[in-house]
Amino acid sequence: MSRLSLNQKTTNSWSLREAIDGTVAAGLSSIGIWREPLAEAGLENARNWLADTGLRVSSLCRGGFFTAADPAQIEAAHADNLRAIDEAAAIGTDTLCLVPGGLPDGDRDLIGARSRAAEAIGRLVPYARERGIRLGIEPMNPIYAADRGVVSTLGQALDIAEQFGADEVGVVFDTFHVWWDPALREQILRAGERIYSYQICDWITPLPADTLLARGMMGDGHIDFGVITGWVTETGYSGDVEVEIFNADIWATPGEQVLATMTERYTELVEPYL
Amino acid sequence: MSRLSLNQKTTNSWSLREAIDGTVAAGLSSIGIWREPLAEAGLENARNWLADTGLRVSSLCRGGFFTAADPAQIEAAHADNLRAIDEAAAIGTDTLCLVPGGLPDGDRDLIGARSRAAEAIGRLVPYARERGIRLGIEPMNPIYAADRGVVSTLGQALDIAEQFGADEVGVVFDTFHVWWDPALREQILRAGERIYSYQICDWITPLPADTLLARGMMGDGHIDFGVITGWVTETGYSGDVEVEIFNADIWATPGEQVLATMTERYTELVEPYL
Repeated sequence: MSRLSLNQKTTNSWSLREAIDGTVAAGLSSIGIWREPLAEAGLENARNWLADTGLRVSSLCRGGFFTAADPAQIEAAHADNLRAIDEAAAIGTDTLCLVPGGLPDGDRDLIGARSRAAEAIGRLVPYARERGIRLGIEPMNPIYAADRGVVSTLGQALDIAEQFGADEVGVVFDTFHVWWDPALREQILRAGERIYSYQICDWITPLPADTLLARGMMGDGHIDFGVITGWVTETGYSGDVEVEIFNADIWATPGEQVLATMTERYTELVEPYL
Repeated sequence: MSRLSLNQKTTNSWSLREAIDGTVAAGLSSIGIWREPLAEAGLENARNWLADTGLRVSSLCRGGFFTAADPAQIEAAHADNLRAIDEAAAIGTDTLCLVPGGLPDGDRDLIGARSRAAEAIGRLVPYARERGIRLGIEPMNPIYAADRGVVSTLGQALDIAEQFGADEVGVVFDTFHVWWDPALREQILRAGERIYSYQICDWITPLPADTLLARGMMGDGHIDFGVITGWVTETGYSGDVEVEIFNADIWATPGEQVLATMTERYTELVEPYL
């Protein structure tokens, strides 16, 4: 269990303080933090709580959303991402997760949006490097290509990442987003040391009506975690395994119970392959 | 409009007879037929109606669903696909569309299911060749990878197709399924003469609650039909352009009106790039 991390989105009804306490109570040593609850708690409080508990912060979610075509919006997104880098440094993680964002309203130029996302990442690299923060691009399931993430495959994320140093830009990838990819093994092996975070949750069917909340607990869906985790292990990955689940039913379940189930499923389905 | 084809799924409430009459009334010369309404109408009736009207049949939908692991189910699927080939030949189309099917119940071995689908296609080739029927593999949006189509990209479909002659196995591809693919242009150009059918409909957001019915009328969503159609034209494709829309609102609209809208959108968004 030393590598299992609670991404706090999984216990969405908990404040940051509650998520930190819940993670410690469940015997875990690592947590993935989101910016909104971090802002609510205050950076200084968060730093103190983390120091007191000794928890590692596996990643900060999330920067990105830089596909706008409008110059003012591009600058606003850039400034917000600089703040995200500062926040990541302040809470002692080395990884900022970047979700590129979707097509701007009424814009159908997917190639253009992808190119702006790549450019925006490049602009962040010097600032992030100085602060010791690695930028992890998160490829998103094509189901979100229009409205959330124009980077759709691990290979596409690596095409961007490889323009920079291996300790500057890499990938944060979630089984939910990439499990279907026929090139998955090849691209995981290609990623190698650029895997900054390995996140897990399941693909469930029928897909819940709100597709943003369509992720499932490991074991409840169709993903073979043994196979994919085995490929990640082949690369020599020794980092945390974050569980990040967006799901209304899980969010309505008491956090302690969610952590118990997630720990049990991790122990059964994932840990043997690490 | 000489290349626009109504896939009868777009006017789902119509019988085959009504779809044939509606297609003719709208001034189109081609129709894509589904097996279930064809069975209801009877093969002999359908042949007569088609002969009377002179309509081309752009494709028969669909064979496939051959990912089962159970030997008896594999044989049943094979036999059903032989019947589909016979039906395609009987109604005078040269293309049978194949939807591979999803993971068997409780089975998480995606690689195994993909391999069985490829094998099942290979088994059909001699029978189809003798009857002048080309097998068009339909890659499906990853949203359906678990429950409907384990072939998720055009590249993956071509990896299978290229094991056979260019007039034996190819691809039927729909913008809805492939629009997000970063390798789309490259794979369309690779497909070349193996493009047996080019189908169009839009990716709309928010995604309707029933994701099977999530397709939209061209122009109502996020897909740039000019760009993708331009790539198809680059290959020298001179076949029909089939409109196939699964959408509850469109199915509830009178067929004549759907055909009018679809013709208008095709003329505006697609035809200039052919």
